[in-house]
Amino acid sequence: MSYDYDLFVIGGGSGGVRAARRVAGLGKKVGIAEESRYGGTCVIRGCVPKKLYVYASHFSEHFEDAAGYGWTVGETSFDWKTLVANKEREITRLEGLYRKGLEGAGAELFDTRAELRGPHEVWLKNEDRIVTAERIVIAVGGTPNPHKDLEGHELAIVSDQAFDLTELPEKIIIAGAGYIAVEFAGIFHGLGVDVTILYRGMEILSGFDDDVREMLHEQYEEHGIKIITHQVFSKLEKGSDRAIRAHLSDGDVMDVDQVFLALGRVPMTDGLGLEHAGVELDQRGFIKVNEYSRTNVGSIWALGDVTGREQLTPVAIHQAMCFVATEYLDRPERPDHELIPTAVFSQPEIGTVGLTEHDAAEKFRNLEVYKATFRPMKYVLPNRQGKMLMKLIVDADSNRVVGAHILGPDAGEMAQLIGIAMKMGASKADFDRTMALHPSAAEELVTMYEPTYRIIDGKRQDD
Amino acid sequence: MSYDYDLFVIGGGSGGVRAARRVAGLGKKVGIAEESRYGGTCVIRGCVPKKLYVYASHFSEHFEDAAGYGWTVGETSFDWKTLVANKEREITRLEGLYRKGLEGAGAELFDTRAELRGPHEVWLKNEDRIVTAERIVIAVGGTPNPHKDLEGHELAIVSDQAFDLTELPEKIIIAGAGYIAVEFAGIFHGLGVDVTILYRGMEILSGFDDDVREMLHEQYEEHGIKIITHQVFSKLEKGSDRAIRAHLSDGDVMDVDQVFLALGRVPMTDGLGLEHAGVELDQRGFIKVNEYSRTNVGSIWALGDVTGREQLTPVAIHQAMCFVATEYLDRPERPDHELIPTAVFSQPEIGTVGLTEHDAAEKFRNLEVYKATFRPMKYVLPNRQGKMLMKLIVDADSNRVVGAHILGPDAGEMAQLIGIAMKMGASKADFDRTMALHPSAAEELVTMYEPTYRIIDGKRQDD
Repeated sequence: MSYDYDLFVIGGGSGGVRAARRVAGLGKKVGIAEESRYGGTCVIRGCVPKKLYVYASHFSEHFEDAAGYGWTVGETSFDWKTLVANKEREITRLEGLYRKGLEGAGAELFDTRAELRGPHEVWLKNEDRIVTAERIVIAVGGTPNPHKDLEGHELAIVSDQAFDLTELPEKIIIAGAGYIAVEFAGIFHGLGVDVTILYRGMEILSGFDDDVREMLHEQYEEHGIKIITHQVFSKLEKGSDRAIRAHLSDGDVMDVDQVFLALGRVPMTDGLGLEHAGVELDQRGFIKVNEYSRTNVGSIWALGDVTGREQLTPVAIHQAMCFVATEYLDRPERPDHELIPTAVFSQPEIGTVGLTEHDAAEKFRNLEVYKATFRPMKYVLPNRQGKMLMKLIVDADSNRVVGAHILGPDAGEMAQLIGIAMKMGASKADFDRTMALHPSAAEELVTMYEPTYRIIDGKRQDD
Repeated sequence: MSYDYDLFVIGGGSGGVRAARRVAGLGKKVGIAEESRYGGTCVIRGCVPKKLYVYASHFSEHFEDAAGYGWTVGETSFDWKTLVANKEREITRLEGLYRKGLEGAGAELFDTRAELRGPHEVWLKNEDRIVTAERIVIAVGGTPNPHKDLEGHELAIVSDQAFDLTELPEKIIIAGAGYIAVEFAGIFHGLGVDVTILYRGMEILSGFDDDVREMLHEQYEEHGIKIITHQVFSKLEKGSDRAIRAHLSDGDVMDVDQVFLALGRVPMTDGLGLEHAGVELDQRGFIKVNEYSRTNVGSIWALGDVTGREQLTPVAIHQAMCFVATEYLDRPERPDHELIPTAVFSQPEIGTVGLTEHDAAEKFRNLEVYKATFRPMKYVLPNRQGKMLMKLIVDADSNRVVGAHILGPDAGEMAQLIGIAMKMGASKADFDRTMALHPSAAEELVTMYEPTYRIIDGKRQDD
């Protein structure tokens, strides 16, 4: 039997584009469909615009700090529309590069929604026709949870809209305390917005190391970001004072210009036609895949956020590369999800590799914890408050570094490179025998001579 | 025979203070003498004030870049005296911490010049008396080469004075092109000074990787820093237009407010009384030491810059720690000078570990060179020119990464942490199997899939 395509990819984000481009580059006939804009979450409404906005929001700090270094700065003002327009220009440029890369490799691009119609059949909405493919990759990604149970949720925005608001709000509540919530809290605060984080749990950034969570919480409050824990919205309604009146579960009422729901992300499987091919979902609604990213249907694979594995751009790309090696290069490769370095672009930034102290204490019976907190050198002359944290968690029996956690400027860059050493199985002795580089922040990581405390059988031992 | 002290240290810089503090902390009787200010080159007239000034000089870039992010900035101005005063406050604070650390450990501090008078004898100038010690450590450091052969050299400044000029010059020539010269060129330029670098050689930053040297040269010129190579001063004289008229070896004349000589550093052994104990110097005039930092005189050691080994703060501290372990803890340790990560705080910054391409090509017969040059993300919206360079040099036979060179923001922090992996003997495969962290600059280092070129038997092979 012959197919229209060797490979058809549904979804033009990081994973889908990489798979399509590589396979087309091998001379195969490849089609790819994207209903929104090529580049996907990362380029269009995620990592890229987020980091640009983080840069934008740093300037208020620069202006404040200048005086300590001898500078006098005249009046400053910020224009949201200029930032949005400049961001738009950049992501349009990147989108163009993605398209060009695909076209250059010989893939056929479709600007349309596409849905499954069978194990080898894809329906293209704008042409209303079905194409066939030997292999199909589903890489449709995820989308912010709209939280439809909440009365008045339609008054709120999610991260997709946050980048393109027509006006910068004066006052915003962000519901949620995951990385998206804390990143946007930092962005809006830096741009002059009155920001409140509202979170049902005990402490922001669930899943991260407790010291990092507490120190970021403290520093956000010192900067003037309000954090309300143990509460949720009971309902949202139109306001008179400001656009929205938000009712909190304890009965309080807050009048704000925007409510931003950052309450997790869900896979974009609605109406995707998975049932026509019999593709199975897991209990959380993500597409179930095996260790080679193959679904239960032999001709269909799924990559990236729609599979519910670590929802990160490089992970989706890595899964795509493994898929290509396995299916087209006769070199089976399983994606490796161990020891992924990650960052949160909060202000200050977080960088982390490996286990939290809490998780390490469950896994190892004899831990050493090394901690350094200090004021970053550049904060000194401006007398900026805020400490940097460096923390290493070491399995004392093997001397291996099992967790590294950094809070402070450039923590993400640092986590990326600590990741190489930790992937190699670095011991604390490997860190110690590396010469310090002075003056740097990272040198603290190689000059921690004595453990701050030990954890034996899950119990912290303070000397 | 009994001595006044178990240990006497001449010189209160990084190496001397660490040795004195540690040995005093072991309950030994320790004296230390410093004729200037505790903290030494690093704290008082080197790393620390230098990096503070680098931070200060970044603000002009921040002000320029703000517009691309939507900010309007009123008129800005810079006051040199404020920076100098704020720097002074900080280094005075650090100096106090050094003194306190020594006192807290029980060392006796002398604020005086001290000179050797014998294998166990030290003369204290301000009290005009001789004290005796079982062991003596010489850690007097280095000082900028005053270049006394140059006619009119007394009109010029060296780095010691550059931090405390009473006024910021409008126009300066910096002679030399080592790291001190290029760092100060970046600082003065960022603070608004018209800067020229004058260098006798072919290219700035001798000893660094050629790509780094060329790219920094290009970017300095793009920023407006003038670089004159293949020339030296023939003489300096008082000027009429500006304070100094500088005559160049090709006959050109330049009128400037300051001439800054950054022509290397020399050991501070003048008048130190080494001859009274018979301490030998090497051909370059540095104190000769064995692999345990011991001089030819059994009771005398030398640490840090005065020994002419790598002139870096952490290296001096490391030598001090090894001395203490060897002599007082019954645990002989030789300082390890292999694979020291270093940075140059030029603008952009440089970070480097291991061999240059040139040196690697002499040592290995089969090299792979991986290079990525790209515009840092934060430069995009402001449309700032300037590329970042990431370069890995790999011994193809062993797959080992033998050199890493970075030019761009935060290169120093990156070099520190790549240093851990390289000290562990990282292979290119170790870099490759580390998951990227997006969006970061450092992710480029773990996503370089194909060599840019190979070098076989010293010859570059372009495909």
